[in-house]
Amino acid sequence: MICAIDSTHDPNLRSWVKSANQTDTDFPIQNLPFGVFQARGHAETPRIGVAIGDQILDLTACQQIGLLQELPESLKAACCASTLNPLMAMGRTASLSLRHHLSQLLRAEQAPPADGTILVSMSEAQLLLPATIGDYTDFYASIFHATNVGKLFRPDNPLLPNYKYVPIAYHGRASSIVPSGTPIKRPYGQQKQPKDSAPTFAPSQMLDYELEVGCFVGMGNELGDPIALDQSEDHLFGLCLVNDWSARDIQAWEYQPLGPFLSKSFATTISPWVVTLEALAPFRGSAFVRAVDDPPTLPYLMSSTNQHFGGIQLTLEVSLSSARMRQEKIAPLHLSRSEFQQMYWTVAQMLTHHTSNGCNLRPGDLFASGTISGSEAGTQGCLLELTQRGTQPLVLPTGEVRSFLVEGDEVTLRGYCEREGYIRIGIGKCQGIVDIRGQQRA
Amino acid sequence: MICAIDSTHDPNLRSWVKSANQTDTDFPIQNLPFGVFQARGHAETPRIGVAIGDQILDLTACQQIGLLQELPESLKAACCASTLNPLMAMGRTASLSLRHHLSQLLRAEQAPPADGTILVSMSEAQLLLPATIGDYTDFYASIFHATNVGKLFRPDNPLLPNYKYVPIAYHGRASSIVPSGTPIKRPYGQQKQPKDSAPTFAPSQMLDYELEVGCFVGMGNELGDPIALDQSEDHLFGLCLVNDWSARDIQAWEYQPLGPFLSKSFATTISPWVVTLEALAPFRGSAFVRAVDDPPTLPYLMSSTNQHFGGIQLTLEVSLSSARMRQEKIAPLHLSRSEFQQMYWTVAQMLTHHTSNGCNLRPGDLFASGTISGSEAGTQGCLLELTQRGTQPLVLPTGEVRSFLVEGDEVTLRGYCEREGYIRIGIGKCQGIVDIRGQQRA
Repeated sequence: MICAIDSTHDPNLRSWVKSANQTDTDFPIQNLPFGVFQARGHAETPRIGVAIGDQILDLTACQQIGLLQELPESLKAACCASTLNPLMAMGRTASLSLRHHLSQLLRAEQAPPADGTILVSMSEAQLLLPATIGDYTDFYASIFHATNVGKLFRPDNPLLPNYKYVPIAYHGRASSIVPSGTPIKRPYGQQKQPKDSAPTFAPSQMLDYELEVGCFVGMGNELGDPIALDQSEDHLFGLCLVNDWSARDIQAWEYQPLGPFLSKSFATTISPWVVTLEALAPFRGSAFVRAVDDPPTLPYLMSSTNQHFGGIQLTLEVSLSSARMRQEKIAPLHLSRSEFQQMYWTVAQMLTHHTSNGCNLRPGDLFASGTISGSEAGTQGCLLELTQRGTQPLVLPTGEVRSFLVEGDEVTLRGYCEREGYIRIGIGKCQGIVDIRGQQRA
Repeated sequence: MICAIDSTHDPNLRSWVKSANQTDTDFPIQNLPFGVFQARGHAETPRIGVAIGDQILDLTACQQIGLLQELPESLKAACCASTLNPLMAMGRTASLSLRHHLSQLLRAEQAPPADGTILVSMSEAQLLLPATIGDYTDFYASIFHATNVGKLFRPDNPLLPNYKYVPIAYHGRASSIVPSGTPIKRPYGQQKQPKDSAPTFAPSQMLDYELEVGCFVGMGNELGDPIALDQSEDHLFGLCLVNDWSARDIQAWEYQPLGPFLSKSFATTISPWVVTLEALAPFRGSAFVRAVDDPPTLPYLMSSTNQHFGGIQLTLEVSLSSARMRQEKIAPLHLSRSEFQQMYWTVAQMLTHHTSNGCNLRPGDLFASGTISGSEAGTQGCLLELTQRGTQPLVLPTGEVRSFLVEGDEVTLRGYCEREGYIRIGIGKCQGIVDIRGQQRA
């Protein structure tokens, strides 16, 4: 079931939180994404919050002063947990009723509580991982990314024969998923240049980012019980941004025959706010339009609803700033812009494929889309594509050149939805800086 | 550091638990493996137990009647948890002191508690997963398995160029790891025969088992802090058996370029008892002896200790019984016997490689060895090898033939350590039956 547009998306809604009414905010009252935060310098248990303008609505504080009173007990308890997992587990109906309640609570016509203790300024909060992520899966759903990368290795035959049938994915590493802002240490690893007779173990020289969208699982399924495509979105809670940091030299040497391993597992950064499928309702549109000679999709991945509304009109952007750029106060360099709707597989298809063998998903599990690239220049979602495996380095405004990332480089991913007649909502940002201290040696 | 042989390995030790003194038990007083159980029909919280003969020593019950009194508070608390994770997190010194305490407690010269409430019969207990497994990794450490499988696809060039340098592995799925005895539903999935122009979505016709050893991580490491080889075993808690069920037809079609995914994630079975590295001390021996023309191991994977004692003298066996065999009371058919010491990489090398990029391991994380095969007939650890991809089917004692598994087939893995002058210890067994109900359709 695709979420419906309702009164919470009304473009005329305003909030008593003033910053939420600014046109450039990612978090107007029409968005209401969930996250987990800790007030800086406080040792208190992490709490669930809702982003509103430049503030965080503290749900535990709301509950303490009786503002969640009308909600069912189980939903109130989930709002006061220290991760989003219990809320995610409750499914679509719970998410929707909570959304309506919060939308009411934050409307301008509602009097804000006198003492203001239900808001925490984002600048005074540390944003944590929104959920305990049991398993992390990474797809490869952009046909443009798969083609661009394939061309670098197989110019005549870039796309493998399974690509247009199988939503390709690999299991990722959950332990090394970190929240936005965590410095990233350059990994050591085995690498071998074609000219070398043997590999060396050294710091990666081809450190890259990957622009991806992450999907948090809501309700889970039992082992052995696949989720059909028409029920797929009932099991999806919401979206975030993912930077799947990659060491291309380690990847090239290790990935045959079992896929990427240490080239990915040193760190994966996610943005802190989870934008629900309810919030995305106005921005749904058709799935990627297949070429006329593309093979028909297998029936288990096909549905008329999914074809018409399976896509999400979500624009993604990447920017880069070097240490020197920040020192010289030069704005970050825009690297790419791409469209989530251009993915060959929809989020529903990814989830259904994932469970089609009976694999169980648990609330809070995360799957990511794979690098989101388009077909044209300026739409490539990683440096491997942008610099053609380093052969065409980028030139930064300072004159510095980049084949791959160097220490001090900060990568920022952003995502937002815009549509005529609706208020723009943002996914927020996903940031990481390559740690200038490097990695400790094994 | 490799664990030392001490008084707990004395072959003359006997227990007041009579069944532990029988020569054919997997669980003599020299073993003392840990697991998590629930008494059948009781809704009580799962408890940590120690296998002794055909009984389980209930550590919570021991604590309740004061038998753990001498242990530090933190260790007592870990013994009364509902998973092994807290105990695993405490590291080698804690494991060793607990082992010595339990060994004393169970010795024949010790009077058993009068009321006997600290023992639960294994036949009356349900054995659960021993730990909450945060991440699961599967290696590919048998050069014979890699060669045998490689030959099926590339007769002239079976082993890929990275194999002798990189302990190859892939991230696995943690959610679908199930305890021994859980029925396994045959997965649906995409498959394509060479003669077909397009894939179909259907029940796998090439359902296989894989004989593996699993290693539970003890103390974790911080993200960005690799574990050097000489410290590697300090981070390993113990071993179990793993059946990495595999759908070979799904695997063949999906695995390029990112490795196996749905062909593995429908289920992985593990044995319930974790045999500690302390218990394995008498059975340590040299690592696999490389061929003279094998390339030198890279320095980060090399140490003199590891070379001399990195191996574990552990024999593995697989047997199969069909529904008809059980009906006709025919004993299970022995399929293979192989040696863990024949793995190209040691457990210490696997762990060090895993963290060499800074990847963090958490207490209770699991990594498995990959299929354990030898070089000779009768040592192949999966049907793919044994039947040469189904072309040389096995004949069962009933006259039934098997290219791959059929509904009702039960696969049993066993592992044990034997050495002159020491008491034989077993890892226990890892069992799974192919569910006759099949899988629900997506």
